[in-house]
Formats: sequence, C-alpha cells, structure tokens
Amino acid sequence: MAKEVTTRAENYSQWYNDLALKADLAEQSAVRGCMVIKPYGYAIWEKMQGILDGMFKKTGVKNAYFPLFIPKSFFSREAEHVAGFAKECAVVTHHRLMNDPDGKGVVVDPAAKLEEELIVRPTSETIIWSTYKNWITSWRDLPVLCNQWCNVVRWEMRTRLFLRTAEFLWQEGHTAHATAQEAEAKAHEMVQVYARFAREVMALPVIVGHKSPNERFAGALDTLTIEAMMQDGKALQAGTSHFLGQNFAKSFDVQFTNREGKQEYVWATSWGVSTRLMGALIMAHGDDNGLVLPPALAPIQVVMVPIYKTDEERAAVLERMQEVRRELEARGRSVEVDDRDTVRPGFKFAEWELKGVPVRIAMGPRDLQNGTVEVHRRDTLEKTTVPVEGLDVCVDELLDAIQQNIYDKALQFREANVEKCDSWEEFKTKIQDGKFLLCHWDGTAETEQKIKDETKATIRCIPMDSYVCEEEGVDIYSGQPSHRRVVFGISY
Amino acid sequence: MAKEVTTRAENYSQWYNDLALKADLAEQSAVRGCMVIKPYGYAIWEKMQGILDGMFKKTGVKNAYFPLFIPKSFFSREAEHVAGFAKECAVVTHHRLMNDPDGKGVVVDPAAKLEEELIVRPTSETIIWSTYKNWITSWRDLPVLCNQWCNVVRWEMRTRLFLRTAEFLWQEGHTAHATAQEAEAKAHEMVQVYARFAREVMALPVIVGHKSPNERFAGALDTLTIEAMMQDGKALQAGTSHFLGQNFAKSFDVQFTNREGKQEYVWATSWGVSTRLMGALIMAHGDDNGLVLPPALAPIQVVMVPIYKTDEERAAVLERMQEVRRELEARGRSVEVDDRDTVRPGFKFAEWELKGVPVRIAMGPRDLQNGTVEVHRRDTLEKTTVPVEGLDVCVDELLDAIQQNIYDKALQFREANVEKCDSWEEFKTKIQDGKFLLCHWDGTAETEQKIKDETKATIRCIPMDSYVCEEEGVDIYSGQPSHRRVVFGISY
Repeated sequence: MAKEVTTRAENYSQWYNDLALKADLAEQSAVRGCMVIKPYGYAIWEKMQGILDGMFKKTGVKNAYFPLFIPKSFFSREAEHVAGFAKECAVVTHHRLMNDPDGKGVVVDPAAKLEEELIVRPTSETIIWSTYKNWITSWRDLPVLCNQWCNVVRWEMRTRLFLRTAEFLWQEGHTAHATAQEAEAKAHEMVQVYARFAREVMALPVIVGHKSPNERFAGALDTLTIEAMMQDGKALQAGTSHFLGQNFAKSFDVQFTNREGKQEYVWATSWGVSTRLMGALIMAHGDDNGLVLPPALAPIQVVMVPIYKTDEERAAVLERMQEVRRELEARGRSVEVDDRDTVRPGFKFAEWELKGVPVRIAMGPRDLQNGTVEVHRRDTLEKTTVPVEGLDVCVDELLDAIQQNIYDKALQFREANVEKCDSWEEFKTKIQDGKFLLCHWDGTAETEQKIKDETKATIRCIPMDSYVCEEEGVDIYSGQPSHRRVVFGISY
Repeated sequence: MAKEVTTRAENYSQWYNDLALKADLAEQSAVRGCMVIKPYGYAIWEKMQGILDGMFKKTGVKNAYFPLFIPKSFFSREAEHVAGFAKECAVVTHHRLMNDPDGKGVVVDPAAKLEEELIVRPTSETIIWSTYKNWITSWRDLPVLCNQWCNVVRWEMRTRLFLRTAEFLWQEGHTAHATAQEAEAKAHEMVQVYARFAREVMALPVIVGHKSPNERFAGALDTLTIEAMMQDGKALQAGTSHFLGQNFAKSFDVQFTNREGKQEYVWATSWGVSTRLMGALIMAHGDDNGLVLPPALAPIQVVMVPIYKTDEERAAVLERMQEVRRELEARGRSVEVDDRDTVRPGFKFAEWELKGVPVRIAMGPRDLQNGTVEVHRRDTLEKTTVPVEGLDVCVDELLDAIQQNIYDKALQFREANVEKCDSWEEFKTKIQDGKFLLCHWDGTAETEQKIKDETKATIRCIPMDSYVCEEEGVDIYSGQPSHRRVVFGISY
C-alpha cells in the first residue's frame, strides 16, 4: 500500500493523526499550534461552508465581517466572559519591526508599543456588541442577524489537528433581538440547523441538548449543543448555540426604544461551528483503510481508474472513461479520472481509499468488450460489476445509499454504546469503556465536578430530542433527588 | 432625502466616505484602522469572491489555508522582502492575560512572553514557502497551485475605508513551478483573469501592464498590474500578479529533482486582489445620488416599491408584485420587495438609489388597471412605463444594458483623460488635473523618483494591452533616450 495507516485497535490516536496527515487534510505548520489546511482538506471545509451558509441565509442571517483585533479593555467589560476567554490568547503589543542595530535580522521596535494591547479574537461577542451599539436604536432596527466566517485564536498548550489548534477557522453568528423569547427561539433554531447539517450532510448522528450551567459558554444564560460519539466512544462537541440574555447588551450599553417608546436592553444569541467538524468527520466514519467521506461532502465523489497493459488499451479505456465522466458530471457528480501512468492500479486503489472517495470505478479492456465496469463502494469495500449503460443513475443511487449507510452505521454504533446506568461502580467502569451513560443527576455543580474529578466524565448535555428521560430518580453519585437523566461521557 | 451625500464636485473624498458609510458598506471600528464590513458591503464582496473563485478554479488552482502568524525570523530570510514588508505590522509578543493584581481589569502576563515574536501576516509568501518545502521533492509534485482567502494586517497610519485599512480581506495565490517559463506564464494568466474580472464583472476598464522595477512587489522579478482610473482621474491599482523567480525557493530551500534527476530550485508566482476592489467599485461608478452597482455584483438587482393610498390598494399592489417577483427570481434575478409601510415611496426611492440597486420597479393602482409598471434604471436615472407582461425578459435585457453602459461610461471617461504628453511643463499641469499621461521614460529609477518627488506622479505601468506604444523618443524629464511610452498617474 502507498502509505501505512496505524489501525484503530493498535493506537486510536495515532490512527487519527495518520488519517489527517496521510489523506492530505492538514499538517502542523512552522508556527506552534497552527495548522496548514491542505487543498484536499480545505475542499471538504468549503463544502461544509457552502451548505451551512445556505442554511443560515434561509433563516434570514446575513454575512458581515468584524475586526480581527479586540482592545484588551473590552474583555473586562463582561465579567464572566473575561474569566472564560481572555486568558490564553495572542496579544499584540507592538506595531513595527526594525533592523537589528546589532547586525542581521529584525527586532521589535520598542518605540512602536501600542497604547492599549490588542487581543487576536478568541470569539467576537465583545467587538460585535460594541458595533451593534451604533446599529441599534429602535425596535425597527431589530432583529440584527449577522454571521461571519473567519479565523480565531485561542492559545493551547497541547494541540491536535482540527480538534484543538491555536488558530482555527469557524463561523460565528451573532443576533440581536427585541425580546427574550425571540432570542431564545433563535438559539434553538440555530442548534437545529446544526443538528440537521450534522445528520443529513455529515452523516453524523448527534444528540441535541442543553449544557449544564457549568459547561455553558462564558456569559451565556443557556448553551445548546450537538454532541457526537466518536468510534472510541468519546464525545465530541460539534457545535453550540448560546442564549446570551442581555449580558453583552448591558456590558456595551446596547439599548433600543421599544414599540411603547421605552428604553430596553437588547437580547442576544451567538452560535458557531468550526474546523473541528473535520475532526468529527474523520473519527466518526474513518476505518483502518483511511477516510470514509459522506458523498455530500466528498470533494471527489467518484474516482475512475483505468486498467490496461498496452498503450492501445490505455487509450481505448481512457476514451470511454471520459465519456462516462461527462455523463456523471452532467448529473452534478464530481469525478476524477486517475490517468497517471507512473503508478499501478493497486496503488491508486489504496490511495483513493485512504482519501475516502465514496465510489471507485475501474474499467479495463474486458469491460470495454462486455460493456461493464467494476464499481467499488468505499463504505463497505464491496465490488460489483455493472453495465456501463445507465451507470449515471446507478451511481446516483449508490451515492445516496452510501450517505444513508454511513449514517446508519454511526447511529447503530452509538445506540450500542449508550445505556442507562444507575450504579456508581458500573459507571466508573463503563465510562472508561467508551460509553455514553444516561444517569440521574441532582442538578448541582458540586456533584458534576466530583464526577469529573474521579472519572474525567462530564455532562455532555441534558438531551432535548433523543434519549430524553424525564423521570424521578436519585443522583448516581450523591444519591440526592433527580428529575431527569442526563448524558455523561468523556469528551475530546 | 433620507441621507445627504456630499457631491463629488464639493468634496470628492468626503463623497467617497459618505457612499461607503451611508450605503451601509462599511464603517470604522473601535479598533484603530480596522473596519467593519456591513452586511450590504459584505454581500458585494461575497459576489466578487464567488466569481473570482470560480475563475481561479478553472485555471486549476485549489484553495488551502495557511497560518495567520509568521515567525519573525522568516522575514529576515528573503532580504528584499523584509525591507518591503516586515516593518509596519502587528507583532504578537505574549500569549496570556491575567487579572490585574492591582484591582480590576486584565493585564498582559509577563511570564507568558513568546520565545520568538509572531507577526500577523502582511502577506504569506514566507510561511507558504516554508510549507512548500515539505510538499515538493520531485518534478511530479509540480506545479503546486494554491490560493487562500483570508485576512491580512499592515499597520497604516492614515486609513480610509476599503482603500487603506490595517486589516483587510483578500485572496493570495501562490504557485510553484518547474520552470521559469511556466511560472511567468502563470503570472500572466492570473493578471488576465483579474483584467477579465474587472472588465466583465466590475465594469471597470483597466490597463494591464508591468510595474517599473521600483514599484515591484518586494522580492519579485516582475510585477504585473491592473490599473483603473477613478472619477477624479487618480489611478487605483486593483490587482497584482508577481513572477517571483527562485527568490523564495532559495530563501526556504525548496528544491526538486527534475526529469533529468538533477536538483533545481522551484519557480514561484503570487497574485492577489483585496477588499480594495470595493473602493474601486464605489469610486469608478458612483454618482451624487450614491452607489451605482454593476448588475453582476449587485446583491439586490431589482427593488420593487409599491405605490398606494388605501390598505386595499396596498394589498392588491403587493399581491401582484409578489407574482412579478417570483417571475424575476425564476430567471435568477435577486429581487427585494420594499413593503415597509413606515416610510414613503420617495424615501425608498432615494434609499435604493443611494445603495446603487440597478433597477427599480414602481407599481400603483393605475398600473394594476393598465397592466404596466414604472421601470427606473439607476445608471441613467431614466424612467419608462412598460407592460408587466414580459417584464422578466425586459428586466434581463435592461440589466445587461446597464452592465454594458456602466463599463462604456467608465471607458469613455478614461479615454477622455488619457493623453500623450511630451512636455514637462504640460506634464506638471495635466497630471494635477487628473490625467493619465503616456510619456517617454528613460528606464531609470532615478528619473522615476525625481518625477515622483516633484509631482507625486508614479509610473502606473508599462502597458501590455491598451496604450502600448513602442517607439523611440526622449524621456519627458531627463531627455535621455527612451524606447516606449509608459503610463504616469497620481495614485491612491
């Protein structure tokens, strides 16, 4: 095979890195903690962006762009926010370099010290609400529904490609509303957009729910989340949507005149997903041969590999292949013909499997005679020989089937690894085995913290759609009364 | 009128600012020199991005993403580059804030000083070529054709919305090739992409040419440019494409094994356009009523304003209007029905003129009876009454006509303001009157500098398509021999 991939059983973490690197998704850069997203990885991110962006716009959201830098003092305005965010960040202190007076190279010009330091945005609530103050004076100006696609920086000591990097790409939506009800509804609407995107596009079954107060975004009254299970049974928070109340409006004095002519503070939401979704994609669906991409996100949906011995055979096969390619493209499929003559078909097969291309079509001289092709599906690794006549329709159906199968497989995996648990002893074992456990919780931060300290497990969410279980019981740890089960898991 | 706009005659510079601000394109932020791009302005930028991105991809270019930060030492590697770029920039020196020990707020944690300072990218040649080193070993790995859409920062003392801001958005393409010929051809291909985009999409007649050695990008062997004339006769450099030779490959030791098995340094290009194009759009086409957007870039191509007195009339007109809207949308037009009942039609007319919407359709009760609408075109401010039957086709044709007319108008303006000049006395007067002057130049940096010192005029380009004039003559300033005329102008 072209590139060796560590198996999941051998070393799950190494397997993940192998896939990210060897499938050409991303790599570490010369700058500590910052990654390079390579063209193949970026093409997947672009597809995610395009689809999400369309979904946002259908809800009335418009894109805008706000500054990369945030004045340091802005972080002090919202008390909880500064505690949660402003600490590990990139601080700009100077605005000029100069030639090193001692010789070669450049040094920071001490004369160019900024009066106030600037923080590279870790998230943009503060700079955006300082802007909204100028945009909003009356109920007529509301709602304001903005989103931006941008880079953010959160300094991290230990980084992993896509999952935790100092710089990452994301979108952050920031909306302003006249009433609490409207803002809360928007926060719910957006988490449902994320859930639909995860399920229908990423083939990722997610659990939608509320975060516990402890796990909320800094400054939020409620944080909604989509939580996904990876193949090691760990949880990955794939997107969040926050109801921010009037906290940021108060911090930045954003008031409006309501229909009754009275001044009120504006109600806020924010919501975001990031390149972390790329990590989810790798870990949810990949196998020991490499990536398995859902057709809806695959930059190349169909790869065609010619089989030949002689130059004549090569020419004949490639000619027919280009015809087939055009038929598939006419139906909106993205197709690559791998006509390299420097590597053998087996090498190509392995490479495209590693890259997770959903459908591979091989065609040789015998196929030409018989009017057939060999079709290989990445998800099940099954091969079938089918007539080239009608292949376009066959491929469409196959891509749909693959999209569905990848989702079903991930859902079955999760179903097999979510269970109710009422015994603390069992909890400790099962949570280490990579289960999501549905347990009673007394609702206190103390119990949550103690469980985390003892097992690393956190409350992933108080579920809203799947696994909702409103029933009386006793907390699995404290034995105190509980009114519902919540989802515990160990997270990325 | 809703918002007063300064006329061009009164104060051109204030007129520009008024348009940018009052048409809701952008505004200054709380961070010095950084702008907020508002939803209406960003929608135009998104259209630019979408169209350019498609054009790039057709040439084989793929998108990727490289880090925001560049280690300080990288800038010292390419000697000319550091001189040209590394000086006025945002320098990250620390990675943590802490609570102020003296009380409220946060301060920079002195313990979190970085070993090596990081520069917020002013352009990415250095970080990208340090990455390409890992990607390129053989001729088989070439060409590498990457582009990224991102933000960059160049500290500026005096800023203007879109034209000169500390942070701006852009795309930067970076390609790597096996031969000088191929790289140079790529640099030419991309400047032609820019020229086509400017002319066909932005309706901006541009002159394509080479920069003089003095005006080249830091580290380039050749810089190609598209230069546009604004309505005050000043030049705006709208996009550049650089043939970088082997400079960056040598600085970052990027070598490949060629087909003969020998090691060679790789050849490079880079090319970019930025949100500065938004400034060009405003200044090339706007008038004293506001923006004039080319239909190809207008976020709203058609706005419909209902005219009514009674509620019944309003309902009847809006119902018909929604039908018309659907017909126009079915042909791919973007349409807004302005059904606000809080402002009068005259206010709406002025507002949509300010925002540069190409076509406005008004419909009242009498139109309903007669089966007509009033169609107003933004570029000429002409009104006509046309049958509502067949309006979709009529609007399509009108949008095409407007796109063409805006271009023709800008071209006529330029043609009227470009002239040959062979007298230094005339030069000094005419260049201040806002002309592009085609003059003989002796090819020396000294003469170029002296002309700039005396008149602020620079060589905008040595033209490649329009105004090419290869002929013997004498330099307008030095009287030394010259082999061609070049374009002089005063630039933004």
